[in-house]
Amino acid sequence: MNDMQNKTMLSLIHNRKSVRHFQSGDVNKEKLKEVVRAGMAAPSARDLRPWQFLIITNENTLKNLAEQLPYAKMLHDVSAAIVVMGDTTVKSPSGQSYWLQDTCAATENILLAAEALGLGAVWTALYPYQDRMSPVVEACHIPEHIVPLNIIPVGIPEGADKPKDKWEPDKIHWNAWETK
Amino acid sequence: MNDMQNKTMLSLIHNRKSVRHFQSGDVNKEKLKEVVRAGMAAPSARDLRPWQFLIITNENTLKNLAEQLPYAKMLHDVSAAIVVMGDTTVKSPSGQSYWLQDTCAATENILLAAEALGLGAVWTALYPYQDRMSPVVEACHIPEHIVPLNIIPVGIPEGADKPKDKWEPDKIHWNAWETK
Repeated sequence: MNDMQNKTMLSLIHNRKSVRHFQSGDVNKEKLKEVVRAGMAAPSARDLRPWQFLIITNENTLKNLAEQLPYAKMLHDVSAAIVVMGDTTVKSPSGQSYWLQDTCAATENILLAAEALGLGAVWTALYPYQDRMSPVVEACHIPEHIVPLNIIPVGIPEGADKPKDKWEPDKIHWNAWETK
Repeated sequence: MNDMQNKTMLSLIHNRKSVRHFQSGDVNKEKLKEVVRAGMAAPSARDLRPWQFLIITNENTLKNLAEQLPYAKMLHDVSAAIVVMGDTTVKSPSGQSYWLQDTCAATENILLAAEALGLGAVWTALYPYQDRMSPVVEACHIPEHIVPLNIIPVGIPEGADKPKDKWEPDKIHWNAWETK
């Protein structure tokens, strides 16, 4: 890989933004699958892959959830949403679950893949809020051992949302906490 | 962005791999900072950014931790490691902490940025294991309210580690759990 490609790759990470404003237009199934495929490429502790993914394209379900989820009203404006879920029964031999770590890494891949494909997306949290998880569990018949981490509206970005510069050099510590 | 660039971007996600075999050679400070900068570009719930980053380049510290951390023996073979940490005191007005979600997303960005720069890296878990967190807390004087999520050895990949194909179409559910 050359320096130019390196730069292009890093720019993907820095160009990702939380997109909350969408223009009309559908996202086709192949693109949605491509985005979720990127989610499955995330690292997973002991390769347990305790993730599951729900893709919602049903208009009534999207409208219903938009009404019930105050932080995900953008579901009104998109033709699709991805719910990233963790299977709480998938554990290491010693009984440790890593569903939260693995699904968060998978979510970041999903957000980056959406950016790469020119789509807009935003992580809206469901877990750990019971009142946010319940409407999705009910609408999508999610079984009890599966936890919906978030719901990610996916659509065509309107263009108003820009990436934030969150660089804070003070948050880097060299070799020990005190040393800067 | 054109289709070719889209493809290059997605390939970054699919080319990322857990690198556990390194060749000799140092990673300079600027590259390490660039990698952590990508970590800080991760999404953060309510923009709280409860993350902190420790970059270890001290050879004695790396050797000491390699001895004490059975799952991070690769620290013997690298000139640097990044510890991604969460500040448990950073909370939303309602008292909710999102340090785990946010630091996991930041970690994925770090792993992808390492890949983009031709470096090798691997997420080795510290949290939630007290016996793995303690050696790092002691060696690096990490205060009590800061939780070290992982330690990521960063080096020049030897080349043997390849990305896994983790695509499992059965893990995609359309509109409801039962529907495939």
